[in-house]
Amino acid sequence: MNPAPPSNRIVARYLIETAHPLEQAAAHMAGEQSSGTFVAIPGETDELKQRFGAQIIDIEECGEASVAALPGSKQPASAPLKQAKVTLSFPLENTGHSLFALFAQVAGNLFELSPFSGLKLLDLDIPDELAKAHPGPQFGVEGTRKLANVYDRPLIGTIVKPSVGLAPADTAALVKQLLAAGIDFIKDDELIANPPYSPIKDRVAAVMPVINDHAEKTGKKAMYAFNISDEPEAMIRHHDTVLAGGGTCVMTNMIPVGLSGLSYLRKRSQLPIHGHRAGWGMLSRHPLLGMSYLAFQKFFRLVGVDHLHVNGLRNKFCEPDDSVLASAKTCLAPMAGRHAVMPVFSSGQSALQAPDTYQRLGSVDLMYLAGGGIMAHPDGPAAGMASLKQSWEAAIKGISLEEYSKTHDELAKALQKYAKPK
Amino acid sequence: MNPAPPSNRIVARYLIETAHPLEQAAAHMAGEQSSGTFVAIPGETDELKQRFGAQIIDIEECGEASVAALPGSKQPASAPLKQAKVTLSFPLENTGHSLFALFAQVAGNLFELSPFSGLKLLDLDIPDELAKAHPGPQFGVEGTRKLANVYDRPLIGTIVKPSVGLAPADTAALVKQLLAAGIDFIKDDELIANPPYSPIKDRVAAVMPVINDHAEKTGKKAMYAFNISDEPEAMIRHHDTVLAGGGTCVMTNMIPVGLSGLSYLRKRSQLPIHGHRAGWGMLSRHPLLGMSYLAFQKFFRLVGVDHLHVNGLRNKFCEPDDSVLASAKTCLAPMAGRHAVMPVFSSGQSALQAPDTYQRLGSVDLMYLAGGGIMAHPDGPAAGMASLKQSWEAAIKGISLEEYSKTHDELAKALQKYAKPK
Repeated sequence: MNPAPPSNRIVARYLIETAHPLEQAAAHMAGEQSSGTFVAIPGETDELKQRFGAQIIDIEECGEASVAALPGSKQPASAPLKQAKVTLSFPLENTGHSLFALFAQVAGNLFELSPFSGLKLLDLDIPDELAKAHPGPQFGVEGTRKLANVYDRPLIGTIVKPSVGLAPADTAALVKQLLAAGIDFIKDDELIANPPYSPIKDRVAAVMPVINDHAEKTGKKAMYAFNISDEPEAMIRHHDTVLAGGGTCVMTNMIPVGLSGLSYLRKRSQLPIHGHRAGWGMLSRHPLLGMSYLAFQKFFRLVGVDHLHVNGLRNKFCEPDDSVLASAKTCLAPMAGRHAVMPVFSSGQSALQAPDTYQRLGSVDLMYLAGGGIMAHPDGPAAGMASLKQSWEAAIKGISLEEYSKTHDELAKALQKYAKPK
Repeated sequence: MNPAPPSNRIVARYLIETAHPLEQAAAHMAGEQSSGTFVAIPGETDELKQRFGAQIIDIEECGEASVAALPGSKQPASAPLKQAKVTLSFPLENTGHSLFALFAQVAGNLFELSPFSGLKLLDLDIPDELAKAHPGPQFGVEGTRKLANVYDRPLIGTIVKPSVGLAPADTAALVKQLLAAGIDFIKDDELIANPPYSPIKDRVAAVMPVINDHAEKTGKKAMYAFNISDEPEAMIRHHDTVLAGGGTCVMTNMIPVGLSGLSYLRKRSQLPIHGHRAGWGMLSRHPLLGMSYLAFQKFFRLVGVDHLHVNGLRNKFCEPDDSVLASAKTCLAPMAGRHAVMPVFSSGQSALQAPDTYQRLGSVDLMYLAGGGIMAHPDGPAAGMASLKQSWEAAIKGISLEEYSKTHDELAKALQKYAKPK
């Protein structure tokens, strides 16, 4: 056990691979990312090093490697490649409250440092003082539930497909079908923003009346996340269009938009911000490069995103279930007393994954997005939607899907349709 | 030879690794990133696929692998892992002029697609119509030279070190020393933005009078890049502070700030924007994951960054020289008739690398940043600065450093100091 770091330090945990002595490698990381240099420099006094230097909190060796994970390192060929978890702490004073300096500190040049053939940021502890200098999510789980009027189960939703090419009227027609099926949430694809074939203002003008009409008739208003990713002022313009149309959610592609643009949106937004992580694979796919979602989500959460994509169990991408669950749990974990962020499960989801998603996450505070899981149900979208609700009812009641399907026809047909051939 | 794609299509080149048939794998990429899906969907007509679908332009097999480069893929274990270059084209209509949709299209979810154990974006051709919808660099090489009044050789510069901890008065004292040495360019470290120990306004207030005084006395005004990375309006505030103080450059950490925030700055900036790429290693370090600088720089260049970091030859990081040169050349290559971006060489640079930098780049349009290469010269910073100028004179004249050092003492001492022991 290591003592808890003082509250005015940022703590960053890494997985590294190096053939250098671990202490020396960790000292190199600490030095490069704070006041140290390896050539003595005038002005770099001991006092300054003491006050601003990063500290090594822990080094835990966790394996050896026979082949370097990444090329380009400068390491002794004679020594074995070791993998280790390294924990560093940085004085809050170094970055102040700047997320831009913090990012450069914990996830900047150090991925290129030559003593390492692997380096990944695993997690980050951010002192409350820094966290509280940023707005955090305005709606989070609670605010989103209130707007969607869905409680005690996940918000069940879908993504408009085809990803690109639908004219606003086509999107509206699809939305109408989804509303009739009882959908809670619909989102734009990350590939669509404000293209000539479906400008946001036309998309809002076509889609929102359909949603508003349905809400008037049924009392149920589905949440639609319009992808407003753009330059700062354009995002506000799009946001205002969505708001004026009666919309209840906006979406951004977090990585290209970036922390700065998102902060601008957050400070003016009156709607929840749905965070899509397109490009995330670049940062996450390699086990010894990039950063974990545990660290990544903290940056975007401080800036104020309300929903965060996490993939789903048995998704069609490459992410293993354990990683999906760790990401979702970290979204729901408290941070500086602010709203929890709603994790968004998607990719290859159907009635089948509800029980283990619920069991392993221990919460119904999530969005559960399905495409084929709704639209490809043998009895149509309404039956697909019903099958998802039923599978979550079964999960929450602790009844097996097989058992529950005996009295729930839509679920029974979904199990037949989506079950993998044995 | 493939025919040139029509001018209204975006062309993206990838390196992939897969055990699936290459045609099938490429079709999967094309489908996922445009209108295709692998489950037939109502609304996805042939006409829509024709108009919005990505096309495979070329597939070039280039090797086999015995071990998967990345974990998590779903591939036939029985088939060999092949590597190939795949070229796709996308209709401009899909994204319109949005860099946020473009990023999601060419560098979004596809890194997570399960048929691939490796996928890297190698390069991107952007139609002029899209490029011209964005401002591009305001100053570029020419405008930067004019402000720094340095012609016919690289701008020679340095980074304020220690990276963190210097109070404004200490930074100013260091700047004074560097000005006396005849420096052209000085920049903040990427780790310093607006911290309590050196708020930007105090740093500008301390540094700029020193630079202005020196300029009045000598006629030479060094360019100082203040790191103003922040939320959009704060960046403008910092920019205005720098401008009011007589400063001639601002700097941002491009990745955390993002394209949106940078576009806000560019449209209001009256100064060149120095682009630091802290975090770049995450995207670049693995040969089969992420994106090349050839693609990356296009996004930030369209948004309007004027200077872009590229590492240097024989740098202290992991990047090989060929990659550094390819990055620098792409910065100098024309794009949509706009200013060329100034590549910034740094990391372990001294008098030693000038000849091959010049020979291999074929240009003097660059910044050449040295730390120890200036400050650690045996006869002090002025001699260090002189040695760098002399090494570039020799390079440009085609005289060997050894020969030139016979009549240039500062260079002779630099060669002695920085040469690696044989």
